[in-house]
Amino acid sequence: MMQLQVLLVAGTHGNEINGIWLFEQWKKSPLLINTHGIKTYKVIGNPVAKKAGKRYIYNDLNRSFLEESFSSINSSNIEAKRANQLVQLYGSKGENPCQIALDFHTTTSSMGSCLVIYGRRNTDLALAGLIQNKLGLPIYLHESDKKQTGFLVESWPCGLVIEIGPVGQGLLNSRIISQTKLILENLLEQIKNVNNLHLFLPDQLIIHRHIKSIDFPRDDEGNINGFVHPLRQGRDWYPLKKNDDLFCKLNGEIINYQGNESFVPVFINEAAYMEKNIAMSFTKRELWDFDDNWRKSLIELLCQQ
Amino acid sequence: MMQLQVLLVAGTHGNEINGIWLFEQWKKSPLLINTHGIKTYKVIGNPVAKKAGKRYIYNDLNRSFLEESFSSINSSNIEAKRANQLVQLYGSKGENPCQIALDFHTTTSSMGSCLVIYGRRNTDLALAGLIQNKLGLPIYLHESDKKQTGFLVESWPCGLVIEIGPVGQGLLNSRIISQTKLILENLLEQIKNVNNLHLFLPDQLIIHRHIKSIDFPRDDEGNINGFVHPLRQGRDWYPLKKNDDLFCKLNGEIINYQGNESFVPVFINEAAYMEKNIAMSFTKRELWDFDDNWRKSLIELLCQQ
Repeated sequence: MMQLQVLLVAGTHGNEINGIWLFEQWKKSPLLINTHGIKTYKVIGNPVAKKAGKRYIYNDLNRSFLEESFSSINSSNIEAKRANQLVQLYGSKGENPCQIALDFHTTTSSMGSCLVIYGRRNTDLALAGLIQNKLGLPIYLHESDKKQTGFLVESWPCGLVIEIGPVGQGLLNSRIISQTKLILENLLEQIKNVNNLHLFLPDQLIIHRHIKSIDFPRDDEGNINGFVHPLRQGRDWYPLKKNDDLFCKLNGEIINYQGNESFVPVFINEAAYMEKNIAMSFTKRELWDFDDNWRKSLIELLCQQ
Repeated sequence: MMQLQVLLVAGTHGNEINGIWLFEQWKKSPLLINTHGIKTYKVIGNPVAKKAGKRYIYNDLNRSFLEESFSSINSSNIEAKRANQLVQLYGSKGENPCQIALDFHTTTSSMGSCLVIYGRRNTDLALAGLIQNKLGLPIYLHESDKKQTGFLVESWPCGLVIEIGPVGQGLLNSRIISQTKLILENLLEQIKNVNNLHLFLPDQLIIHRHIKSIDFPRDDEGNINGFVHPLRQGRDWYPLKKNDDLFCKLNGEIINYQGNESFVPVFINEAAYMEKNIAMSFTKRELWDFDDNWRKSLIELLCQQ
């Protein structure tokens, strides 16, 4: 019987330093975090990028968990190599097999604390549901975006991204650290509860389902020529309706949202997404009935150990 | 008779992008900024660092305006070379001689908009006084810090740094852009007024005089083991008195300010200063009588042209 083990990652993006710092403090004071008896491995996702104070060196590590990376162990690409290494070390069939990966991120957007899941895996939905039931955090379901793949957590049988903001890159912030600690301890508590078959599950989940991302306004040469409207800045999770202010330009021109369909924007003005031509993402807020198969899958994964 | 010319710099730090973006928009729409008829040169301070999305490549450009740099034109150090080049091109004895340099920065600290002057040059005090009189901006006098020298504006007969925050590195923000534009236009208006001998000067200046910088709490190995207390975060310009909350640690320990002397902290938790071991700087708020020699010096500099 294998032990239940959880991989905890901070600094998958090297300039998101609050989780890294929390892990370093924790290594020095092992009682700092209540792990509820769960065996954890805590790692810095991209230590080279962290040292350089950058999000990544060659490629975004959180887009590098791809088949190509795993076939290229001798790649000179730091992130492809690191993705490979993490799976070899902590993958469910790795040297220290972990069934769950929890990946701690920060954002410059005013997202508060939220959970991100990639696709509709039963195990992810169950664990996210347990946390939403306990802490009320919003769940952002990222799926069917062909341009964005290779996320770390997808390489584990169960995995969540925890996004906390707003905080600037490279900036230590008391609120962000406290929130990271709170969610980490609650996740481990819930995992322990599942392991003890002691689950409090909600009847329904509130899901923010990713629909699409939109770019900044651009001129004929493709340069950004407008910014997020001040009434939209910081308003992640607030619905956007037709004619609402969206962007504005320096000449005073306001760009209103012209779609007929209402969306809930998230990741508004995330600094790292500018290079991806993403000003914000649009989601649909949906109420999903909790499916008992989600619970079964999570129990199966965690209790077979 | 030489023409009055003003050098405008944005992106002296490559990841402070709001000023850079404003300048780029301005280049495309020359009427965007009211220059009040003043001839300006607008440059990106560190275009290589900007491209890399970093503050700098080898050295902070805003610490590179040193005698050493100017004697090493063939240096392979990007910033030493660039400092040299800017002085050659726009120095008061350069190819396009400018009498004033205005250097636009942003900060992750909640500084609002403020002016930074280095040392007590008459011309700087006069120009800063004109702007304080018009817009009420605080003036931060940075001086007698032997560890920090080589600031860009010191290489011009008159020069101010404009600091605006809070905004994360690499992040475009509507408020920051508007503030940059407002202060830029007001500075050019005041320079025009001086040139026309049409000055409205205050009787007194409020100066925040730099006293010292303090580090984060550190453990025996020199690692940061505490962060800015939530009640101090974002409270730039608010006085700090004995026993006020200053830092806190993850174990709940609060570090109070123990000095007997009250100070006004600025640049609280500026991301870029972490590498300089600066958690914040302490200033003394002082009321200075306006010295008529300041006015004379500025008029002499600008009206002899």
